[in-house]
Amino acid sequence: MAEPLHSEIVEADGHLIDSRLLTSVFDKVIERGARFDVLDFSIGRTNEEFSHLRLRVTAQTEDGLRDVLEALIPLGCHPRRHDDARVALAGDGFVPEDFYSTTNHHTQIRQGGRWLDVAEQRMDAVIVVAEGRAVCRKLRDIRAGEAVVCGVAGIRVVPEFQERDRLGFAFMTNDVSTERRVDVSVARVVRMMREVKADGGRIVMVAGPVVVHSGGGPHLARLVRQGWVDGLLAGNALAVHDAEAAFFGTSLGVDLEAGVAVEEGHKHHMRAINRIRRVGGLREAVAQGVLSRGLMHDVITHDVPFVLAGSIRDDGPLPDTLMDLVVAQERYAEVLRDARLVVMLSSMLHSIGVGNMLPAWVRVVCVDINPAVVTKLSDRGSSQTAGVVTDVGLFLDHLSAQIGEERRDRASNK
Amino acid sequence: MAEPLHSEIVEADGHLIDSRLLTSVFDKVIERGARFDVLDFSIGRTNEEFSHLRLRVTAQTEDGLRDVLEALIPLGCHPRRHDDARVALAGDGFVPEDFYSTTNHHTQIRQGGRWLDVAEQRMDAVIVVAEGRAVCRKLRDIRAGEAVVCGVAGIRVVPEFQERDRLGFAFMTNDVSTERRVDVSVARVVRMMREVKADGGRIVMVAGPVVVHSGGGPHLARLVRQGWVDGLLAGNALAVHDAEAAFFGTSLGVDLEAGVAVEEGHKHHMRAINRIRRVGGLREAVAQGVLSRGLMHDVITHDVPFVLAGSIRDDGPLPDTLMDLVVAQERYAEVLRDARLVVMLSSMLHSIGVGNMLPAWVRVVCVDINPAVVTKLSDRGSSQTAGVVTDVGLFLDHLSAQIGEERRDRASNK
Amino acid sequence: MAEPLHSEIVEADGHLIDSRLLTSVFDKVIERGARFDVLDFSIGRTNEEFSHLRLRVTAQTEDGLRDVLEALIPLGCHPRRHDDARVALAGDGFVPEDFYSTTNHHTQIRQGGRWLDVAEQRMDAVIVVAEGRAVCRKLRDIRAGEAVVCGVAGIRVVPEFQERDRLGFAFMTNDVSTERRVDVSVARVVRMMREVKADGGRIVMVAGPVVVHSGGGPHLARLVRQGWVDGLLAGNALAVHDAEAAFFGTSLGVDLEAGVAVEEGHKHHMRAINRIRRVGGLREAVAQGVLSRGLMHDVITHDVPFVLAGSIRDDGPLPDTLMDLVVAQERYAEVLRDARLVVMLSSMLHSIGVGNMLPAWVRVVCVDINPAVVTKLSDRGSSQTAGVVTDVGLFLDHLSAQIGEERRDRASNK
Amino acid sequence: MAEPLHSEIVEADGHLIDSRLLTSVFDKVIERGARFDVLDFSIGRTNEEFSHLRLRVTAQTEDGLRDVLEALIPLGCHPRRHDDARVALAGDGFVPEDFYSTTNHHTQIRQGGRWLDVAEQRMDAVIVVAEGRAVCRKLRDIRAGEAVVCGVAGIRVVPEFQERDRLGFAFMTNDVSTERRVDVSVARVVRMMREVKADGGRIVMVAGPVVVHSGGGPHLARLVRQGWVDGLLAGNALAVHDAEAAFFGTSLGVDLEAGVAVEEGHKHHMRAINRIRRVGGLREAVAQGVLSRGLMHDVITHDVPFVLAGSIRDDGPLPDTLMDLVVAQERYAEVLRDARLVVMLSSMLHSIGVGNMLPAWVRVVCVDINPAVVTKLSDRGSSQTAGVVTDVGLFLDHLSAQIGEERRDRASNK
Repeated sequence: MAEPLHSEIVEADGHLIDSRLLTSVFDKVIERGARFDVLDFSIGRTNEEFSHLRLRVTAQTEDGLRDVLEALIPLGCHPRRHDDARVALAGDGFVPEDFYSTTNHHTQIRQGGRWLDVAEQRMDAVIVVAEGRAVCRKLRDIRAGEAVVCGVAGIRVVPEFQERDRLGFAFMTNDVSTERRVDVSVARVVRMMREVKADGGRIVMVAGPVVVHSGGGPHLARLVRQGWVDGLLAGNALAVHDAEAAFFGTSLGVDLEAGVAVEEGHKHHMRAINRIRRVGGLREAVAQGVLSRGLMHDVITHDVPFVLAGSIRDDGPLPDTLMDLVVAQERYAEVLRDARLVVMLSSMLHSIGVGNMLPAWVRVVCVDINPAVVTKLSDRGSSQTAGVVTDVGLFLDHLSAQIGEERRDRASNK
Repeated sequence: MAEPLHSEIVEADGHLIDSRLLTSVFDKVIERGARFDVLDFSIGRTNEEFSHLRLRVTAQTEDGLRDVLEALIPLGCHPRRHDDARVALAGDGFVPEDFYSTTNHHTQIRQGGRWLDVAEQRMDAVIVVAEGRAVCRKLRDIRAGEAVVCGVAGIRVVPEFQERDRLGFAFMTNDVSTERRVDVSVARVVRMMREVKADGGRIVMVAGPVVVHSGGGPHLARLVRQGWVDGLLAGNALAVHDAEAAFFGTSLGVDLEAGVAVEEGHKHHMRAINRIRRVGGLREAVAQGVLSRGLMHDVITHDVPFVLAGSIRDDGPLPDTLMDLVVAQERYAEVLRDARLVVMLSSMLHSIGVGNMLPAWVRVVCVDINPAVVTKLSDRGSSQTAGVVTDVGLFLDHLSAQIGEERRDRASNK
Repeated sequence: MAEPLHSEIVEADGHLIDSRLLTSVFDKVIERGARFDVLDFSIGRTNEEFSHLRLRVTAQTEDGLRDVLEALIPLGCHPRRHDDARVALAGDGFVPEDFYSTTNHHTQIRQGGRWLDVAEQRMDAVIVVAEGRAVCRKLRDIRAGEAVVCGVAGIRVVPEFQERDRLGFAFMTNDVSTERRVDVSVARVVRMMREVKADGGRIVMVAGPVVVHSGGGPHLARLVRQGWVDGLLAGNALAVHDAEAAFFGTSLGVDLEAGVAVEEGHKHHMRAINRIRRVGGLREAVAQGVLSRGLMHDVITHDVPFVLAGSIRDDGPLPDTLMDLVVAQERYAEVLRDARLVVMLSSMLHSIGVGNMLPAWVRVVCVDINPAVVTKLSDRGSSQTAGVVTDVGLFLDHLSAQIGEERRDRASNK
Repeated sequence: MAEPLHSEIVEADGHLIDSRLLTSVFDKVIERGARFDVLDFSIGRTNEEFSHLRLRVTAQTEDGLRDVLEALIPLGCHPRRHDDARVALAGDGFVPEDFYSTTNHHTQIRQGGRWLDVAEQRMDAVIVVAEGRAVCRKLRDIRAGEAVVCGVAGIRVVPEFQERDRLGFAFMTNDVSTERRVDVSVARVVRMMREVKADGGRIVMVAGPVVVHSGGGPHLARLVRQGWVDGLLAGNALAVHDAEAAFFGTSLGVDLEAGVAVEEGHKHHMRAINRIRRVGGLREAVAQGVLSRGLMHDVITHDVPFVLAGSIRDDGPLPDTLMDLVVAQERYAEVLRDARLVVMLSSMLHSIGVGNMLPAWVRVVCVDINPAVVTKLSDRGSSQTAGVVTDVGLFLDHLSAQIGEERRDRASNK
């Protein structure tokens, strides 16, 4: 091939080995049919020190080179030449073809020779620049005439580094196995929760209806009462099953104590929905004493923010369930703002939704009895996701038991 | 126990043995701590003949008896004494506590001594009576002052009977196995599709994005072009992945031909969304030649009705995606009206939503590589669900190949 | 079809409705292209009463009729005419083509006008008749010249009836769900174990290595020490992992307390095997104080019979592991003799092996985190299998906690 | 901690970044509570060049240091100081406590100042040194007085390097997804099979009975007839189901063409076993014309070596099935000798057994519909395992179709 070659020099700093970044950098180059030459690599001498990489990337075409560079940005590689980021004007709800689509990692863009931190970091967004600020914005929220970042120049991503041996978190990461002792994982989650709370951080729970079916409701409610839960994100079904359990002692018609199907499941289910609808919603039901116990009762009486997002399969729904998903996504995002730890409990749909909204530095614990769900959530880009494959009811039982001991004192002083 | 006992005589007719109805009747009575006495049972002498049951049910309390009777209604048992159904007035979006919650089976109610067929049968609805008609209505669509059926009197359900050996459908029912020869199942689905079409019936497909990832897109598109698909129900992701494949040849960044990840998956994904948003939607993209091939292209050019329902995890979304789920559920229901066969392709969320909307006599085929999904969908009450556990891309390939042969002629005359 | 028709009258008695036998009878006839006429059916009037069936079966050919009759035998149908069972002479390790292959249900054969109970009932065996006794025998144990039952005449099977509401066992049967409260299932297993022990019955555990990985080892050991376990059936890996845990505190190199991989997993694994091999076996290791704690230690010191069956994947193996599977199967069968309850703990391979050996009236509880395993084991013919889909480590923890309380007294008097 | 520190310098060469070896080296050190200092690291400048590492490892104790060094050996790190490997005398079937337990990677040991290649490399073995040769030996085959390698000195492992973009194999590695287009994976397997055959290499298939149930039997048989299969490793069930299909057209009683259960599954199953037992085995059955078609028939008539290993769950078994697992393991190992590619088809048990026997440089493709099985097999240490999650029957259909075209010519000249 006599074509002229195109090349560019990029640089990266950080825990490039530990976080497998260096391997990924090389992979991306080769996958795209390009080649690399390592111009300089100085390795961190110890576990704490950073490494530094300088790399020349060479491709057959200008476009090919651009593709590789774009692929290397999320790995922390930035061109050695510092140009400003290019901006171009958006339409109403759409942007130029070559817009920069964000990752969930810390990002900076260069404007007027200065690096600006991008605010409200999340994945699959565009970066809007205005009045010396850069901020992530969803496509549908873009307005005509806004300046959005395009191309690859002047963009710098600082990936999270997988920290070895901090809170033992690394152990659980990428380690989706049904063959582990759950109490070990529980102990780690307890440690994380304590650390986050000691720092004044917020913990958000994402919960599916299996939490109720599997008997985890009372345990999660206890965590709520003790102040461990700063937000609850769920769907219609969680609240309906919880109300059904509070009203009738059943969940989809199965008696939670006796385990016997006492009645047509759906009858209780629909009656619970009807009873809540009659008074106008969950908050009203609690206020009027109609709903006097259960998870949602405790969430409401302890002023924990909650959002119920609708789905195509919802019955009813409860008046509290947001059937307009644009609103639901916004309300989810508000509850997640500044969260430091998110615990996902057997709810693939809502967990994926939440995962899309989170910056990469928020820690995520995902608990599900199905290893495929844990793998799928762990694969969605955060290096901070720890998976626990187990029965969610028993997990919450043990979590609440392990954490409960010492929290009791604090909670009683509240 | 010296309490006075409460009893009632109920009757049922039909294929009570084959459809396991008789077993279920006895189970329901015993589960609720009641007892039964068979006053009369005449069995169908042959596979074609109906059986007839007359049963006395006895419970300790009036409430207990009511509970049992309510549980027996969906099994086809109705009180021997024919009273009119009781109606009571609804509030706005809610109904009296003892409302009758529907199943997905054929239902009749008695008014003025006459049995009325209930229209728009679906599960988890209430029955509204007005001007001599009875119709299923969702709770949220109930308006204050409407008359809704309450209690258990004057309600008659005619369950579907599992027909032995019709189309070999029975074989696949309740038989969720990864250890079957898929071509046998494909042949049956082909036979069902032909029969339904020969009868002038409608076939609706429910499809998840895995259809595109797994290479099934072109095969499903071929079925669309040949006139086998009368409606497509999906979510945002199916159309986005299909557009991505049409524009870039990738699905979530994986090259569909070479199988190599050619680029940051999400970049293509977001670019596809942006390109469709720019022109205003999928139909506009087709009209303007922006989207010139793929499944959605063929769906649109062949005037197949489609609905994309939003979900909490959606990126974008496409302008065509309905983020208001109340609207989405109504549009889904419209496409499903009069469907005779629904084929669910690797989409648990939308499939459950669709399952909730269907009357029990619509045939359902559910294809997924995960046996748990097939089991879950098959458990949702329809005796007409056949499950196939296999790779959905290969399933569509073989389905399209087997059915394609003879359809070609018909299609070419169209 | 002008062919002469062939027909026969069969009869059956029992809980034909509850146990779904009647449905199955009709299914089998129709599946084979034959037809049935119900000559008489008197239904059990209450939950306790038996039903009685008299049925004429008609097929196109003599062979077809024979096939149907053969298929109806395991469902409890026997010809109205009572002929003696036909016997024919076997070869060495093989039998005549038309031999009767047994099920796991109570069976009787007619000889000299009298009905003989078949001893050592198990599935997939042949029935040998000698000196007025009938006994199940595996093909490989058949010797030339023995008389084995052939054909379908003179054979009567008494299927187990699914008893409603006994020990709540029925609830768990055929109900494989990850969405249940495990403590309810645990309570039922506790009740079963107590009932069996109160009756003087034997309880056998089948355990896979996941029991150790998942932290269940100490809980199962506690049950052993308390006298709940009358036999342990496992493979090489369970004992190796248990020894590894006892020697090094790890299981496949993962520290069971800290959950951290402390070392090359396989190194500890192989060292544990070597240490046991050095002294000659597990019993010697216990006797010499080399193995001083753990599950196998407690099994040996409490004289609980155990058998370790080899498999193609075994490392080592331990001297105690039977690599000759003919011997292993025989030793398994000995431990299972007269067992009343078998609890299968996360070991598909050994559980299927055990399932093949058991008569249908032995109760089986199967615990696994993978619903497919529970379904597969439940499908293998016993109406007495209850499945629990959960984390086996947590299951044993809760089982040992719930059962432990009151047993303590008895155990201390031992 | 005032304890004296213990340290050692190790070195490694190779594709340390690509193969994630460097990351693993650092992980192992930190996990064990030790520390590292990188004394020198020169990176491969291009995708082809090797990297070189010199590292000082420091631990608190002598034992701790030894542990770390032992853990680093399989990653290719060897002490800078070159001592001879230490040998010690074994007992009968056991070895000294500090024996070196092998991995499946190329290994060398130093004796008399020279590096010897270790023969018959496999994991979990010990290294016996005799007459200037070093060879892997299983514990049970060790005899008293043999010299085995102990400790960590003088041992050098050369890990396989994950080659980027060779045969596109890397793509499939560590990529267990149900959401891929299978034909892409099939095309890669076809390419690998052709390459191996073009090189004169051997291909071994490991197959479970699902191959027959799922309709893959005829496709695998076609590969056998065309000369693609140089060995077949399986269990009793594969051959029994194949014989059942050949005799009766059913597999576990399900008609493979019609998909209808034509008869008591187990009856045909046991009859097939009996018929083979009668003539003395599969080879005799083929020779006498009793078994005249099917997979095993083609395997035997094309002189493909096969081994059927017994398991605790086997019925029968066939006379050909090896119930002595020591013999079965040896025969498996013989068939695997010099294999270049092993294709594992839906048989977890036999696949794990085979995986244990293989050196790391043999390529492995694992096909199963259950992603957990593919993950489990991929995790067992070979960097050369590619997983395909799909229906095995359809996989074999497409594999045989894709590869068949051009092979036809070659095969016809054979």
